[in-house]
Amino acid sequence: MIPRDHPRYGSLVTREHLADCARSGIVSWEGLIAHGRGEAFDYLLGEKTSESAYHAAKTAAALLRTARLPVISVNGNTAALAAPQIAHLQKTSGALVEVNLFHRTPDRVRQIEDLLQSAGAEVFSGEAERLLPLAHDRGFCRRDGMYAADVVLVPLEDGDRCGVLVEMGKKVIAIDLNPLSRTANMATLTVVDEVTRALPVIADACSLLTDQECQHLIAALDNKVFLREALNKMKARLCDALD
Amino acid sequence: MIPRDHPRYGSLVTREHLADCARSGIVSWEGLIAHGRGEAFDYLLGEKTSESAYHAAKTAAALLRTARLPVISVNGNTAALAAPQIAHLQKTSGALVEVNLFHRTPDRVRQIEDLLQSAGAEVFSGEAERLLPLAHDRGFCRRDGMYAADVVLVPLEDGDRCGVLVEMGKKVIAIDLNPLSRTANMATLTVVDEVTRALPVIADACSLLTDQECQHLIAALDNKVFLREALNKMKARLCDALD
Repeated sequence: MIPRDHPRYGSLVTREHLADCARSGIVSWEGLIAHGRGEAFDYLLGEKTSESAYHAAKTAAALLRTARLPVISVNGNTAALAAPQIAHLQKTSGALVEVNLFHRTPDRVRQIEDLLQSAGAEVFSGEAERLLPLAHDRGFCRRDGMYAADVVLVPLEDGDRCGVLVEMGKKVIAIDLNPLSRTANMATLTVVDEVTRALPVIADACSLLTDQECQHLIAALDNKVFLREALNKMKARLCDALD
Repeated sequence: MIPRDHPRYGSLVTREHLADCARSGIVSWEGLIAHGRGEAFDYLLGEKTSESAYHAAKTAAALLRTARLPVISVNGNTAALAAPQIAHLQKTSGALVEVNLFHRTPDRVRQIEDLLQSAGAEVFSGEAERLLPLAHDRGFCRRDGMYAADVVLVPLEDGDRCGVLVEMGKKVIAIDLNPLSRTANMATLTVVDEVTRALPVIADACSLLTDQECQHLIAALDNKVFLREALNKMKARLCDALD
């Protein structure tokens, strides 16, 4: 048992939960390593949503709200960390929720779909085909889901898949704590924030934004600015530590 | 198989190796998350040994060389990542190599000892006793090993154990990629570098340093300076990305 007064209680509970999910197969071992990377960058962000990330999350909502076919692509880490937040976002955005895994097995897909469903999400399932120009299992998605989407939200995505989706002409929204990552730099829009903090902001904005506000946010979208602001935040944190 | 031309090939191969080691029990799931944290900080360091880290590694060699009883404490991640480098350092430093685990089971200890031995290290084994004032398995070490040591090298150590060893009057050398961590800030000397890069530098310096050079390095040791230089390096990396 983790003592409640431990200075890193929340972080330790999350780690233990992810490890349980790794034992049950929902999270891959590589997913645990990826979580550690995220932890380090979140530490540098002060573990809270910056004003800039908040603005990026609202812009993400505008993209989802104005999409013809928005799809939320869920992997093992996202499901383990944020299944209820995904269900909530689906309700306010009307997006399809589709499971796409880097380390894909039919059993893992089923487990993650079950987890999402028990959190209240409706999962867009069915036969996945090799439709993305990527080797191995990462090329799989569903023809009427991610493949047909015009806007895809990919929390915690791999750089290659993010790049391919952009090349296919889709608007890709990433949630990524590393503003230097390939994903963050290739996405149409990157929300540099922790996934359980970012998703509710996006979900609430989907309900609250007017159509006009959506248009304004999209017209002003410049992902480089969001990435710079995140880098500046981290730089300020390092400078504080140097004082 | 990871394609050789992948921009992150080295990093992906290491991750896959660690995941294999987690499956076989050598690496704990917390070890995987910890590796991810390290990756993030190494990324900010540009994934190479800085001049300052090189100097810290030489100072580490000076401490080991002049010790009465130097001990290298090895955990699962260190063994999985750097067993041959540990064996090499043992040869040039004459230190005892002892396995100490945060998540200790007799089976894990045996597996890690076997791995070190097959890489050419001589492992100081035998009965571990609860000799450190720490709860649970973390309080275990060997009476004639870490407990009796005057200088302990702890690559990738937990903050609590590092603190206790310092309080017991030992000189503690940490290898830690996070200059903000409790370990990095409590150690006598912190080499802010990736473990497979740092260990060979320490090992070679153990062979090459004269006694007088050892004395000079130890007299000049100020860990705060090494930590500041690492933070400055990371800051510079963020500033470059901002340009």
